[in-house]
Amino acid sequence: MARPTPPYFGAAYYPEDWPREQIDDDIRHMKDAGMNVMRIAEFAWSCMEPHEGAYDFEWLHHVVEKLDQAGVGVVLGPPTCTPPVWIAERYPECIVMLEDGTRIQHGTRRHACPNSPVYRDHCERIVTRMAEEFGQDDRIMAWQIDNELYISGGERGCCCPVCHRKFQESLRARFGTIDVLNEAWGTHLWSQTYESFAQIPIPKSHVWHHPSLQTAWMNFQSDSYVEFAEQQADILHSRTTQPVGTDMMPFGGIHYYKMHRKLDLVQYNHYDDMPNLWRQLFWMDYVRGVCEAPFWVTETQTCWGGGVIAAGYKEPGFCRANSWLPMALGGEANLYWLWRTHWSGQELMHGSVLTSAGRPRHIIGEVKALAQSYERASEFLNTTKPRRNEVALHFSCWAWWLFQFQPQKAGFHYLNELQSRVYRPLAQTGLRMDVVDPMKSLDGYRVLVSPLLPCLDEGDLRARLKDWIEAGGTWIVGPLSDNRTLEATKYTHSPFGCLEEWTGVHAKYELCGDPRDFTMRWADGTESTGGIWYDAFEANGADVLATYIDVELDGLAAITRSRSISANRGSMSSGRLRVGLCSR
Amino acid sequence: MARPTPPYFGAAYYPEDWPREQIDDDIRHMKDAGMNVMRIAEFAWSCMEPHEGAYDFEWLHHVVEKLDQAGVGVVLGPPTCTPPVWIAERYPECIVMLEDGTRIQHGTRRHACPNSPVYRDHCERIVTRMAEEFGQDDRIMAWQIDNELYISGGERGCCCPVCHRKFQESLRARFGTIDVLNEAWGTHLWSQTYESFAQIPIPKSHVWHHPSLQTAWMNFQSDSYVEFAEQQADILHSRTTQPVGTDMMPFGGIHYYKMHRKLDLVQYNHYDDMPNLWRQLFWMDYVRGVCEAPFWVTETQTCWGGGVIAAGYKEPGFCRANSWLPMALGGEANLYWLWRTHWSGQELMHGSVLTSAGRPRHIIGEVKALAQSYERASEFLNTTKPRRNEVALHFSCWAWWLFQFQPQKAGFHYLNELQSRVYRPLAQTGLRMDVVDPMKSLDGYRVLVSPLLPCLDEGDLRARLKDWIEAGGTWIVGPLSDNRTLEATKYTHSPFGCLEEWTGVHAKYELCGDPRDFTMRWADGTESTGGIWYDAFEANGADVLATYIDVELDGLAAITRSRSISANRGSMSSGRLRVGLCSR
Amino acid sequence: MARPTPPYFGAAYYPEDWPREQIDDDIRHMKDAGMNVMRIAEFAWSCMEPHEGAYDFEWLHHVVEKLDQAGVGVVLGPPTCTPPVWIAERYPECIVMLEDGTRIQHGTRRHACPNSPVYRDHCERIVTRMAEEFGQDDRIMAWQIDNELYISGGERGCCCPVCHRKFQESLRARFGTIDVLNEAWGTHLWSQTYESFAQIPIPKSHVWHHPSLQTAWMNFQSDSYVEFAEQQADILHSRTTQPVGTDMMPFGGIHYYKMHRKLDLVQYNHYDDMPNLWRQLFWMDYVRGVCEAPFWVTETQTCWGGGVIAAGYKEPGFCRANSWLPMALGGEANLYWLWRTHWSGQELMHGSVLTSAGRPRHIIGEVKALAQSYERASEFLNTTKPRRNEVALHFSCWAWWLFQFQPQKAGFHYLNELQSRVYRPLAQTGLRMDVVDPMKSLDGYRVLVSPLLPCLDEGDLRARLKDWIEAGGTWIVGPLSDNRTLEATKYTHSPFGCLEEWTGVHAKYELCGDPRDFTMRWADGTESTGGIWYDAFEANGADVLATYIDVELDGLAAITRSRSISANRGSMSSGRLRVGLCSR
Repeated sequence: MARPTPPYFGAAYYPEDWPREQIDDDIRHMKDAGMNVMRIAEFAWSCMEPHEGAYDFEWLHHVVEKLDQAGVGVVLGPPTCTPPVWIAERYPECIVMLEDGTRIQHGTRRHACPNSPVYRDHCERIVTRMAEEFGQDDRIMAWQIDNELYISGGERGCCCPVCHRKFQESLRARFGTIDVLNEAWGTHLWSQTYESFAQIPIPKSHVWHHPSLQTAWMNFQSDSYVEFAEQQADILHSRTTQPVGTDMMPFGGIHYYKMHRKLDLVQYNHYDDMPNLWRQLFWMDYVRGVCEAPFWVTETQTCWGGGVIAAGYKEPGFCRANSWLPMALGGEANLYWLWRTHWSGQELMHGSVLTSAGRPRHIIGEVKALAQSYERASEFLNTTKPRRNEVALHFSCWAWWLFQFQPQKAGFHYLNELQSRVYRPLAQTGLRMDVVDPMKSLDGYRVLVSPLLPCLDEGDLRARLKDWIEAGGTWIVGPLSDNRTLEATKYTHSPFGCLEEWTGVHAKYELCGDPRDFTMRWADGTESTGGIWYDAFEANGADVLATYIDVELDGLAAITRSRSISANRGSMSSGRLRVGLCSR
Repeated sequence: MARPTPPYFGAAYYPEDWPREQIDDDIRHMKDAGMNVMRIAEFAWSCMEPHEGAYDFEWLHHVVEKLDQAGVGVVLGPPTCTPPVWIAERYPECIVMLEDGTRIQHGTRRHACPNSPVYRDHCERIVTRMAEEFGQDDRIMAWQIDNELYISGGERGCCCPVCHRKFQESLRARFGTIDVLNEAWGTHLWSQTYESFAQIPIPKSHVWHHPSLQTAWMNFQSDSYVEFAEQQADILHSRTTQPVGTDMMPFGGIHYYKMHRKLDLVQYNHYDDMPNLWRQLFWMDYVRGVCEAPFWVTETQTCWGGGVIAAGYKEPGFCRANSWLPMALGGEANLYWLWRTHWSGQELMHGSVLTSAGRPRHIIGEVKALAQSYERASEFLNTTKPRRNEVALHFSCWAWWLFQFQPQKAGFHYLNELQSRVYRPLAQTGLRMDVVDPMKSLDGYRVLVSPLLPCLDEGDLRARLKDWIEAGGTWIVGPLSDNRTLEATKYTHSPFGCLEEWTGVHAKYELCGDPRDFTMRWADGTESTGGIWYDAFEANGADVLATYIDVELDGLAAITRSRSISANRGSMSSGRLRVGLCSR
Repeated sequence: MARPTPPYFGAAYYPEDWPREQIDDDIRHMKDAGMNVMRIAEFAWSCMEPHEGAYDFEWLHHVVEKLDQAGVGVVLGPPTCTPPVWIAERYPECIVMLEDGTRIQHGTRRHACPNSPVYRDHCERIVTRMAEEFGQDDRIMAWQIDNELYISGGERGCCCPVCHRKFQESLRARFGTIDVLNEAWGTHLWSQTYESFAQIPIPKSHVWHHPSLQTAWMNFQSDSYVEFAEQQADILHSRTTQPVGTDMMPFGGIHYYKMHRKLDLVQYNHYDDMPNLWRQLFWMDYVRGVCEAPFWVTETQTCWGGGVIAAGYKEPGFCRANSWLPMALGGEANLYWLWRTHWSGQELMHGSVLTSAGRPRHIIGEVKALAQSYERASEFLNTTKPRRNEVALHFSCWAWWLFQFQPQKAGFHYLNELQSRVYRPLAQTGLRMDVVDPMKSLDGYRVLVSPLLPCLDEGDLRARLKDWIEAGGTWIVGPLSDNRTLEATKYTHSPFGCLEEWTGVHAKYELCGDPRDFTMRWADGTESTGGIWYDAFEANGADVLATYIDVELDGLAAITRSRSISANRGSMSSGRLRVGLCSR
């Protein structure tokens, strides 16, 4: 059959869980629902290699063939998330080790250590074999590496000896000598000084550890998963021209932007409910710019999520809104999880298109209507692309875990503050923006907003930023920005890395905003109350770059006002400007 | 002295904790309080066998003799709940292993593994010796095996290698080959497929495991305790004609009905307070039918419970109500825990009859009055028995732990829903019923209520039920009934095992009732709101068996209404019936 | 320079964290702030002994010299709280073992076992070396052993084999034979009886253990830290005449009074906020009497506390009130934690005098004003001392952990009840009192209040108390007093050890006050409601010592009233007195 064209509409399909002959019934329903893509195989390692070295791809060819005959394209997933039982049994060193030294067990998913060379060899083997089977098969539309990569093993990820040694080596590679590390982290305090890299511990969560060590460890864990995925990307890129991605949410823990450096497209999963659906605007404004190609939603719910409970009935119309969102924001695919609810296993209650008994769910009407509306809009969608935005908002994966170990303020939650107190008020004014990683180029933006960005040194941002500002860009910065080094320590010359120097103001003192709010008097005479953290500046006649977003004003007005302050050089004659993020 | 006659009235007595000569003072108070039974010895292993193989029963004979002289009968407890310190020291493999591989310690109770052959041998020895000492002693009224059996070791029970291997063997015995297990559990998902029984893990609680595995493990743990108790029952039955029971509550975890297959009487403990005393109606309606003989309350409180705190003063009159309840509901004994509050150990603050200083507590007036009222009613009690009920309500221990691993609905708690949303409204209408295990015979019942009974295959219920319905029984079923197999998986031919077939209705779709309630329109035009789970049925002209309990109506009315729907074949002409458990 | 005179005003200073040349800038700020004392070195082991046996005190001499030149005295801290990494690496047996058998890691503080002979040798070595360097140096004003001693390792402290064996030996030393222990603890219950001391386990927190064992274990842990500190005190006392203390709060866990038996002065840390500042009255009324010398506040906050978050902005004036409190209550030093906020490590957000960037914080005005007001008051402060109080209130560290294992009443928290329901109402009447350990002499007191004092046998209190009462002292006792032995068991002859005998009343019965309050009718006809625990007494014509504090009356009135009851011998003719601690 002809390869399907966007918009792609489909679901995750698990033929390995059902009788072989049932596929015809499933395909009939798929066609009836108007679907043109199925994602398959990403957990089916034990069906492809039931015993070590004994492969069986016949069933998978059969599924691909059947789907293709019906005009349904295939997204194929290397199943490295769920190694077969013989790996856990024969190579127990592959399994993730918890902080207490015990290892996770077979019978779940993501239980193998991303750094285990033995496991990595097994992964290389199965991915290579799959690529040999399907790499030149034009019925395969794309590859999806693994499934929902996240840091497995609890708060600290895998704590096995392999990870520990590799972590120490990564520090040696970064610092060269242990003395450099000691200086960078200020380990003289509490006699934490190390004599050798071999002494660096894994920072267990029950121990009151140094935040620089904690941050470095999480950085290492993240890098491990990036490297793990890149190994598969390399294999696939060398054997196929089909695009390669990995389906995941930007969970805290893995650096989403780094993860995609070698990938061809974003495969994005999301499960927000109606009251939180606005958060998907944020995420899609972000994932849109991570790869060049239009992003795919690889997982979302039709009617509810769930595992052993059904979690949260969604009201009529939710499916429609939720499914159109990616198309409106630059995506080209919307796939549900899942096609037919499992009859066994850990996720028996999850919403889907068909029930375990093969009956269309109550949501089938919305699903079919979506297929029709996608179809009607396809020409428009396929011949247009989202307008390039002139405003960018910084979101940093690295800041996410920096704040995890140094919240600075009690109860501070980076993502929630960023989304609800910065992104949302701006978006509600109708302002369209890109959410961008600090490593991303600033080319083409006129306004850049950098709240809650403690470190300006990711991807050499500081230098690029300076050039961009000097070339005319308007930068709105703070609060809690530019106050930590890449080693998660503070500056000693100033509360900030360069803000004082760049703005010509002098931070007079700092007040913690918890549990008390302060009234701030602005240069223009207005007052506002509430805040995260306050820095009092002294104007010294020099230019002022306002480190301020006033979300009391509605969106565009806020931007305008910030600009006016930014442009209003020398006007800070009242002698002080209190800056912060405010809300009523 | 002559053996006491019912009603039995007494307490748990721990002479091993007190000076030998104090017994005369205790007995004087017992007689004064009107008591005729004492339960003794169930924790006193270290007094009976202070060193391995060195026995001392003299003190126990002395106690039995003294009590008998005063006309106080004895319930004798093999002390296997608290093995002496030399077992923990010399045979550490006997001690329960927690999930993390560490073992519990000496210094508590229920710390030995029920499957440990070494511990089982020690138990056999001490029980045999006790039976030799007292098996032919007619001053012993009954035996009580162990004390409050429950699954020890945290959420998953004992995780020692002996348990692990025995679990794997139990699966081999059940399935024969590993392929059968794989098919039954649907392990193809997530590559969970096993190659051999030796690969089946203990499903640790921190791992996201397969519910079929979890359910099987808890089933195995339960069976282990049943087998443990049965070993002692066999020993005692071969050496004495005195009745044998085991005192416990129907805790979630051990199958209470299976536990009593070889036992002669139910020895039931309970500690509800006044606001929850209605729950004891449920439990006594249940325990009444578990064995043939009238049940005994072996533990309840006089005035409050507690360990290192005194927990909950009970208002005047509570003791009277609480103590009459078993007599009204088919019991013949009421024993308090405890006679004299300990002066040492873990339960220093528990209510009792006498304080640690040997003074009658403030509750002594109610206690004495009870003795007198029991005495006045004794002829009536001893010449009558509770009327056989025509209505039965299903309560399944197996469902309890199935729902633990598959609640289906967020926040769903089987026992609480069953008691508060089904049993209580029915009971409040004055309807008297038996609460019965699914394995129990249906003979003699006219109406059977089976809500929240996910599996109809315990004890071949499905076939027996069909016969019983065809013979004229009225069955009220659902919600959440008949939707899981004995392997804790779903059906694939229908949402239900046989409900569609039996009723001739077709389940159109399912809606999860959380977090939203729906309004249901019934066949008779009435509407109701709220629910656990909804299934939409299409009437197709066939007969309808209503899967519905409407607790908006008061008790008997609800039953009547259900009957009328049940009888009203063909009347579902509106085309849809929404079913569920409703409450305002 | 001349040695500074009181009042001492200063901070904790960490020159090891900063460039050597920065000290001049710091000292300039110190002088500007009016400070005359700095506490240094207590975490700097790795700077003094960077590699095993290789010492470097040059930097420390430099700091002492520089401070002295500026007239700033030095408090010097042996750094045993933070052993260098080579101890953890080379002698892993030194590191605290958690309950699960794992050991804490390097990279934190207080991670070494106080009983480890190897660690103790290292401590002896470094303390001896420091004493040799600075013991005769009159620029050193005082020594501070370690830092904030507390029981490390979670709920149960260190559970290593060394601790375990030493615990068993401590029991052998106390009881002589295991039979004596068995009798004292009543281990016959639950077959807990031990055959040898080697069988006594560490009472792990997840096991339902015997409270006598739990209490003995915590007693042992406390003794271990006392012995640990005393080792250093002995070393220092033999090599210097400078006074020796240890800075800590009276944390639950270590017996604060015992800790100071060999120390010369109290070095007290506190961090309460404004709403809880009244609690510092309690603590300073306590620490004032622990040593002969005036106490020092060695740590408190200028503006907020915090670690990786800044915790709690303090309102203007807080610093002044907080800093004057010790001077008003018998102290002679007030030191802030810390001088200059760290730029690295675990406590980046803590308030201070200077920020990490070396700028005075907003609080600098209050700090300077304090220095001036101290100076103005210095002659008065140095020529007076607090008046000796005639009223004493018992506070027992031992009771604190007894109640931890035996709260008796649900939700009971010893310290909070004592502070908020006894101390505070009395203090609010203007009554000044000493808070005293039960081991302290009663000489000079006219009234003694002993609420919530379960055991009267600490330091032979019972005999001393009897003499004191017979000599005319007025004792106000209860509730929850005299109802436990030193072995944490109950009395068997009476609910109380001697209260019945001493007062001539008879406890008729006990009612637990939870969850219900009772109305009490007093001898004088008044009624009151609420309470912790009730005992009903029968007057038998004998003298009455009132076991009662009525906090419904304001302070002094309550005392008066108690006295009148106490004096009113024979007046309890109503036949009953309900006693308890009452509040509206």
